[in-house]
Amino acid sequence: MNYSVVIYVLGWIMDIEAACMMLPCLVAVIYGEKEGLGFLYVALAAALVGTIIVLHKPKDMKFYLKEGFVTTALSWIILSVLGALPFILNDDIPHFTDALFETVSGFTTTGSTILSDVEALSHASLFWRSFTHWIGGMGVLVFLLAILPMAGGSNMNLMKAESPGPSVGKLVPKVRDTAFYLYAIYFVMTVIEVVLLLFGGMNPFEALTISFGTAGTGGLSIWNDSIMSCTIYQQWVIGIFMVLFGVNFTFYFLLVSGKFKQAFKIEEVRVYFIIIAIAVTTIAINIYDKIGAVGATIRHSFFQVGSIITTTGYGTADFDTWPALSKTILVMLMFVGACAGSTGGGIKVSRFIVMAKTVRKEIVSFLFPKSVKKIKIEDKVIGHETLRSINVYFMTYIIIFSISLLLISYENKDMTSNFTAVAATINNIGPGLSKVGPTCNFSCYSAFSKYVFMFDMLAGRLELFPILLLFSPSVWKRKKKIA
Amino acid sequence: MNYSVVIYVLGWIMDIEAACMMLPCLVAVIYGEKEGLGFLYVALAAALVGTIIVLHKPKDMKFYLKEGFVTTALSWIILSVLGALPFILNDDIPHFTDALFETVSGFTTTGSTILSDVEALSHASLFWRSFTHWIGGMGVLVFLLAILPMAGGSNMNLMKAESPGPSVGKLVPKVRDTAFYLYAIYFVMTVIEVVLLLFGGMNPFEALTISFGTAGTGGLSIWNDSIMSCTIYQQWVIGIFMVLFGVNFTFYFLLVSGKFKQAFKIEEVRVYFIIIAIAVTTIAINIYDKIGAVGATIRHSFFQVGSIITTTGYGTADFDTWPALSKTILVMLMFVGACAGSTGGGIKVSRFIVMAKTVRKEIVSFLFPKSVKKIKIEDKVIGHETLRSINVYFMTYIIIFSISLLLISYENKDMTSNFTAVAATINNIGPGLSKVGPTCNFSCYSAFSKYVFMFDMLAGRLELFPILLLFSPSVWKRKKKIA
Repeated sequence: MNYSVVIYVLGWIMDIEAACMMLPCLVAVIYGEKEGLGFLYVALAAALVGTIIVLHKPKDMKFYLKEGFVTTALSWIILSVLGALPFILNDDIPHFTDALFETVSGFTTTGSTILSDVEALSHASLFWRSFTHWIGGMGVLVFLLAILPMAGGSNMNLMKAESPGPSVGKLVPKVRDTAFYLYAIYFVMTVIEVVLLLFGGMNPFEALTISFGTAGTGGLSIWNDSIMSCTIYQQWVIGIFMVLFGVNFTFYFLLVSGKFKQAFKIEEVRVYFIIIAIAVTTIAINIYDKIGAVGATIRHSFFQVGSIITTTGYGTADFDTWPALSKTILVMLMFVGACAGSTGGGIKVSRFIVMAKTVRKEIVSFLFPKSVKKIKIEDKVIGHETLRSINVYFMTYIIIFSISLLLISYENKDMTSNFTAVAATINNIGPGLSKVGPTCNFSCYSAFSKYVFMFDMLAGRLELFPILLLFSPSVWKRKKKIA
Repeated sequence: MNYSVVIYVLGWIMDIEAACMMLPCLVAVIYGEKEGLGFLYVALAAALVGTIIVLHKPKDMKFYLKEGFVTTALSWIILSVLGALPFILNDDIPHFTDALFETVSGFTTTGSTILSDVEALSHASLFWRSFTHWIGGMGVLVFLLAILPMAGGSNMNLMKAESPGPSVGKLVPKVRDTAFYLYAIYFVMTVIEVVLLLFGGMNPFEALTISFGTAGTGGLSIWNDSIMSCTIYQQWVIGIFMVLFGVNFTFYFLLVSGKFKQAFKIEEVRVYFIIIAIAVTTIAINIYDKIGAVGATIRHSFFQVGSIITTTGYGTADFDTWPALSKTILVMLMFVGACAGSTGGGIKVSRFIVMAKTVRKEIVSFLFPKSVKKIKIEDKVIGHETLRSINVYFMTYIIIFSISLLLISYENKDMTSNFTAVAATINNIGPGLSKVGPTCNFSCYSAFSKYVFMFDMLAGRLELFPILLLFSPSVWKRKKKIA
């Protein structure tokens, strides 16, 4: 382990977070709230420590995959711990576990909450809760890559560890440029949503916070009823943008570059929209009797499907009261998740495409043993290494899921609550069903279970391995030559 | 497709089933029941058709894997349809769907029932229900292989398709001998259980039927309360034999051959017993408060763990009323299943061992990229082909499970019922939780859902692919040269 470079990056992370905390401070000034002081104190302390660290630039700036994974995991833990402190200092969420849960939920863009009354929070805290979604959505290390010059090439290992999806596609040859383009698309799309929501009658505070939650596919709301009381126009804007932020960002990059044909050929994006269309139609038919009006049926069906598949978690309706078929579809979409290379969580559409193609290939080669067939996506052969890593991902996912479910089951809650609570956190969605349904929250679980959920949220956001590796003693051994 | 050899084997299957039906006829004679006539008529018809078919022995007796899979799937469907007819003729289960469900559940050793009052059935029908477990447990094609001379070597393809587990281990070089030894072990162990139950006060009818259900890891009982009213001695005998029938039969073969050291080295068997020990202990601690007495706590915990992991499904207690942790463990054990090469169902312990080792290997090779590690079980390297087939199995399993769950969800039952109903049928267990819990049955589901469950039971018993392939049009193409 090259400790010095890990610590160096962590220093930068602290500085960036300190800078980010200036925004809730500003909000506090605007609304004349004393709660801003909590953010100010933490920001100053973080900036001080961070700056001391980054002044000592290590000589060896090389990053191997192991360092990349460890740095990523530690970055997210430090982000969360520092980010939780203001909530405690300003007394908005006095207990450490709860404050940490809320912050982890924010940064990992999960959107699960332990608060029953979010409207009681100060504007500064509400803003910070939503802003953590925006930071976590694209990933803070991706941001760092965009601004920080690192040793050539090896910074790819940072991006690999933080980016969602089975394989990291570089938009352009240079990692730094890729990171820059990603953030540019992210920023512009967020601005468009903010403008559309302002146009639809929201005030700037509302438009910003709700857009942050959409862009990061987070889902923490500034209202107790999520966004159920928003106007129909606002709900459609949010719904459509949720779905757009679940699209692989390569799609937008190709669009902007004028490569329309290539953009619309991306198989994952097409399958993603097909899944959404089928799910929306089926659920609409299924809930029509309950809701009555055609318009509202389509809107609620579209919104909830979009919210769950992109793992955002905003709600326009309490789907816990919907019929079993609709609930089953939504629970399945929790696992499917959004596209790789988007801000969404879950297992990712591309992994399921590979899974379906693997099974089909196997059956074909069983029927026609002489046929040589390879698994292709967009005419590109999926290599053995990628297939293996997807298999290992599935297996690790099942193991983490099962252990989490067992650990929280000792609390003796109903199985639907437990199952969907783990599903909602490991897939970074937010609400589940029953006791953690859209109108409920995670406060009913014990502190121990909350830490299990935090682990799941982080593991889910960072695609399992970075967080898992922290528990392996051999990761912490002193620098050995590992190529 | 070599149709003639497929039909030839199916003819034999009909003859064997006709012979098997003589036993319930005999039971009817002993108890003076007119319900025996239903079995007699069906047996005569099956014997007639079967004999006409087998008189024309095809010239080309070669079996390729495709023929093996198709024959296996069709055999099981014919077995089930023929086996259901007596229930209808003798008016014990008048509706075709219900009678077929009960028979599929019997042959696949699932043990799910649609009957609320099994005690109202005739002795002949009760005997047949239990006897189908015994036939299905080891597999009727395995039996056929033991008695029928087939073209050298190629009959392995039949065994491959019917035997549970990721890889078929031949006990001895010749398939025919292997089949013989398997049935011999199966027969002797069943006899021992019958004797022990007779010794414990059961009458011969009870001892036989309950032993059939144990040996095949089936679980259909002759009493409405499963075996809850049995004596403590009887429950222990049944419980211990359930666990013994879930052991890989290679273990017993090695024991009988005097190779004790080799027998106790089988990793799957060791892991199987470790899982049972951990589950029993955890559940015992979890339910102690509810049950009160130490003896009863251990007995119920051991019995239910053994019943679920071996996918038998007998019950000594209504575990649907147990705390969430115990229920969660039991639901997980539903998926684990018994050892490969046993009569039990589920995903099989060996597949999970490979899964765990794959994840461990991946993490090690991530930490030490230069290390070359292969996945081994008992010092034997697990080949790339086996790994791939296990991965494909997992993926196919998830796809079938998800589609089944969606299909039955339209009925608007609670999600725990739906989820555990699919789990209980695809893993060939029997009871699930909630509406399909140990004190309930599957009669609450519609005919459509019952066919979904029948598909799942057959797919689960035959390890997914034989049944799945029936739906592929290219399977049915006329004989082409396929090597």
